[in-house]
Amino acid sequence: MLTKESIRDWFIGLQQSICSELEKADGQGKFITDRWERPGGGGGVSRIINNGAVIEKGGVNFSAVHGQAPEHVLKSLNLSGTQAEFFATGVSIVIHPHSPMVPIIHMNVRYFEMSTGQSWFGGGIDLTPHYVVEEDARYFHQHLKAVCDQHHPSYYTDFKKWADDYFFIKHRNETRGVGGIFFDYLKEESGFTKEQRFEFVKSVGSSFAPIYTHFMNQNRNLPFGEAEKQWQYLRRGRYVEFNLVWDRGTKFGLETDGRTESILMSLPPQANWTYNHQPLEGSKEAHTLSLLKKGISWI
Amino acid sequence: MLTKESIRDWFIGLQQSICSELEKADGQGKFITDRWERPGGGGGVSRIINNGAVIEKGGVNFSAVHGQAPEHVLKSLNLSGTQAEFFATGVSIVIHPHSPMVPIIHMNVRYFEMSTGQSWFGGGIDLTPHYVVEEDARYFHQHLKAVCDQHHPSYYTDFKKWADDYFFIKHRNETRGVGGIFFDYLKEESGFTKEQRFEFVKSVGSSFAPIYTHFMNQNRNLPFGEAEKQWQYLRRGRYVEFNLVWDRGTKFGLETDGRTESILMSLPPQANWTYNHQPLEGSKEAHTLSLLKKGISWI
Repeated sequence: MLTKESIRDWFIGLQQSICSELEKADGQGKFITDRWERPGGGGGVSRIINNGAVIEKGGVNFSAVHGQAPEHVLKSLNLSGTQAEFFATGVSIVIHPHSPMVPIIHMNVRYFEMSTGQSWFGGGIDLTPHYVVEEDARYFHQHLKAVCDQHHPSYYTDFKKWADDYFFIKHRNETRGVGGIFFDYLKEESGFTKEQRFEFVKSVGSSFAPIYTHFMNQNRNLPFGEAEKQWQYLRRGRYVEFNLVWDRGTKFGLETDGRTESILMSLPPQANWTYNHQPLEGSKEAHTLSLLKKGISWI
Repeated sequence: MLTKESIRDWFIGLQQSICSELEKADGQGKFITDRWERPGGGGGVSRIINNGAVIEKGGVNFSAVHGQAPEHVLKSLNLSGTQAEFFATGVSIVIHPHSPMVPIIHMNVRYFEMSTGQSWFGGGIDLTPHYVVEEDARYFHQHLKAVCDQHHPSYYTDFKKWADDYFFIKHRNETRGVGGIFFDYLKEESGFTKEQRFEFVKSVGSSFAPIYTHFMNQNRNLPFGEAEKQWQYLRRGRYVEFNLVWDRGTKFGLETDGRTESILMSLPPQANWTYNHQPLEGSKEAHTLSLLKKGISWI
């Protein structure tokens, strides 16, 4: 029987192993550990890395919180007006590298359970290169497709589309990066047991370290100059815009007294804004912009 | 008879005179002019300044737009389901100086009119010093109180409180800066005619240049070092957080296909984020944080 405690414990182990793999690949940066408690119940462990050899700023957060279910959750479950407890646990990661040639990455896996019996998994992983390189995007999506295909024939197609729609900066008409997969409300259905769905979530979580350390190793020594740094700062500005304006998890957390520093660990060390910046026609920056679109089949 | 055209024309003149006063005080920076049209009706003129002697990045935007009133506006006027046209015009300003010793400033004056007859004014002005100096905050509020007192005995008290509540970064439990005044839905009431209310809005708009050029002149040569620049970048990060997470005008604009570059001219040239930054006890940075609270009577 799969309990919420065993799911939580697996996430704790995932956080530890990812931090250890990232430290090993970075070779210099070390994670600090910041434990916190939630007034309403539960808490978390934020693990933060700064000024590594490859990673400039990043966080690998674990949390397991519980308490009175908020009204909007009750309403979405047709439980308005009743009393119920929720339990939520997950791991969230954002890594900002020093080099504009190494992509930003985000991953989240989570589990939600109600005392009234409902439960579901959610998660996602998406890649935000400062410069889009088709071969890197293909590698990333092939890896995710292989993970998905082990569990369900339509997961990759469905969740790739969901990621295109979710990681979209509407006011810029740009995707955040080259997408990835996103899924939510993964419930008991189509003959998949909770155990089977958890196996999928575990596969997604376990894919993070091999995928990202591949990009760290492959791209860390690529040459770049001041022009590439300036472009990186502008792209990080877009990352800030997505997270603060559109990301549902961030917005919900900030509006409901979540732990601000853990939520905003996703923000970059430095971001710049220039009025109406337009890359030169034919430049590699213009090429990147042309690829920040939904519906590209990278594989 | 006060027409929407005459209000719009006054705003156009205000934009011009403010740009001219800011250029004069800066002594080096020049505004560029960017005209744009709104697909649904109307348009605007964004005036942008970069790399002046005092101003690092700023915008003074005018717009006058019209079209089909959106459902949420109709609903708020109990006109749900009917068809009506809106007209909106205003001037919006945000200035980010180079020096951390010169405050960031924001001002907005606006007029809204419905084809069904309703109309109102709104606006506000607030100051965001990177380092709060009580004497500067007092100067600012005394100036605003004098403006308000010419028009209504309770405007300053009411609109100062409104600004404290509006320019509040809830997830940080901090005010954006030392506040100022904020008002909205200023309608026909308590014996004040539209002309009289417009006179108040004009006084607010006209107060911007003398107030801000005072701070430019007074603070431009104050010494600062790298520590003050780093603090400035963190405070600008908070400015980004307020604008993208809480500012109703920004959120509404971005969610309803407003002109993104004009809306986001408010963002700073550079902002930084550091996980859980805490200033040293007794430092001037800690002193500033202790003053970012609602309800301080600066006068």
